[in-house]
Amino acid sequence: MDYPLEQDPGAPVRGGVPEHGRVPKYYAVKARISALLDTWESGTPLPTEREPAARYEVARETVRQALRELLLEGRLRRQGRGTVVAGPKLEQPLSLGSYTEGVRRQGRRPGRSLIGLDRFPCPAALAAELGLAEGEAVWHLERGLLADEERVGLESTYVSVARVPDLERDFDPDSSFYAYLRERLGIGFGTAEERIETVLASPREALLIGTPPALPMLLLHRVSRDTAGRRLERVRTLYRGDRFSFTTRLGEAAE
Amino acid sequence: MDYPLEQDPGAPVRGGVPEHGRVPKYYAVKARISALLDTWESGTPLPTEREPAARYEVARETVRQALRELLLEGRLRRQGRGTVVAGPKLEQPLSLGSYTEGVRRQGRRPGRSLIGLDRFPCPAALAAELGLAEGEAVWHLERGLLADEERVGLESTYVSVARVPDLERDFDPDSSFYAYLRERLGIGFGTAEERIETVLASPREALLIGTPPALPMLLLHRVSRDTAGRRLERVRTLYRGDRFSFTTRLGEAAE
Repeated sequence: MDYPLEQDPGAPVRGGVPEHGRVPKYYAVKARISALLDTWESGTPLPTEREPAARYEVARETVRQALRELLLEGRLRRQGRGTVVAGPKLEQPLSLGSYTEGVRRQGRRPGRSLIGLDRFPCPAALAAELGLAEGEAVWHLERGLLADEERVGLESTYVSVARVPDLERDFDPDSSFYAYLRERLGIGFGTAEERIETVLASPREALLIGTPPALPMLLLHRVSRDTAGRRLERVRTLYRGDRFSFTTRLGEAAE
Repeated sequence: MDYPLEQDPGAPVRGGVPEHGRVPKYYAVKARISALLDTWESGTPLPTEREPAARYEVARETVRQALRELLLEGRLRRQGRGTVVAGPKLEQPLSLGSYTEGVRRQGRRPGRSLIGLDRFPCPAALAAELGLAEGEAVWHLERGLLADEERVGLESTYVSVARVPDLERDFDPDSSFYAYLRERLGIGFGTAEERIETVLASPREALLIGTPPALPMLLLHRVSRDTAGRRLERVRTLYRGDRFSFTTRLGEAAE
């Protein structure tokens, strides 16, 4: 591997190979398959493990580990019972604009599927985040996020029932909650605090999104306020780490 | 597990347990250990695998898998040869402010260690991102990021040599590059485009940061411009996914 002339600035330096010390065999195989994938079109089916195992003279288990990492990183994806070359990750802007808008901008068809809408007495942790009294009625709206029918995420929205009393009756769960707030209730978004981290999918989440369990996910926490500065909703959105990246444009003063 | 009354809005719904179907054994153990950890102070050493294996009547391998996920997620961390309860993740603001500022704000001592400073002809991909000619001389400054002596990240900065000719001679690699640009060269930051994704640590990165290989990391890509709007640097920063989260405050119009 040439360095640094061949180096894409977004890729690991030296192709991830340590200056001193040995490269794990699976990683050498991963790097070679990864270079091949760069030249293949999205959707191309992958050969069985036997073929690369023979070509690189390694055990099939070694190829399996390499493919597993490429899957976790979103270079490959499962399709039916096979594995195909994945397209680039979706780039979702970090903005008060919704999921819908971000996905549409990339020429994919966004969708949502209702998992559940429950009404329950607000627990202490949520009360503190939403500025509500403990025990006050809140909604929990849980939806799956889709891009072209592919399940790509899972979203929980918590909002006070007093604020949005008719959610159960007149909100179409496949539509934008923000559009509903704005058009039906005249509530506009002012600001939001967001926090992003990486977590592993829980068994329930893996089942609902259709990912392998323990796939690294991007988790966005959001508390938004209305235009009057009043806390409005607490959102927890889980995005497939192999399918999403987040973009932002910064324009404040430097350190 | 009670639902949703016991539910922290930041945690997986139903504690991650599917409505239908079985919970994997390791996950049930993970959930129980996780609840224990909530009540233990950061730095508390964990008992050996034998003790929970006996208490929950599962194989030690099952406990090992539970602990491995808690390690990857940053609930636990290695300390010497043992494992201890980890503190909360560092919250790094997404802003043009630097690493230094974010870490300091949380009462930890930021530091940087030089890994390498090289000068090389700009490859095509980097030239496109920085608006340079292919082959033009560029610097690659690679540094480890520290918080209280703990290795937490790895940063590559690419910048044109014509722009910053004396970097090798008069820049202290343990200091802020942004402060250097501003104070020595009068170059101020204007805007930056950032992209965040989750990736697995490569063997070289794992070695340099001291993490297990294939630990999920948060990768930030940045292209910043100076106050005149001219592209200035391309940065690739890898943060330990078990130690960092990113925060941002949004204030634009909603969808």
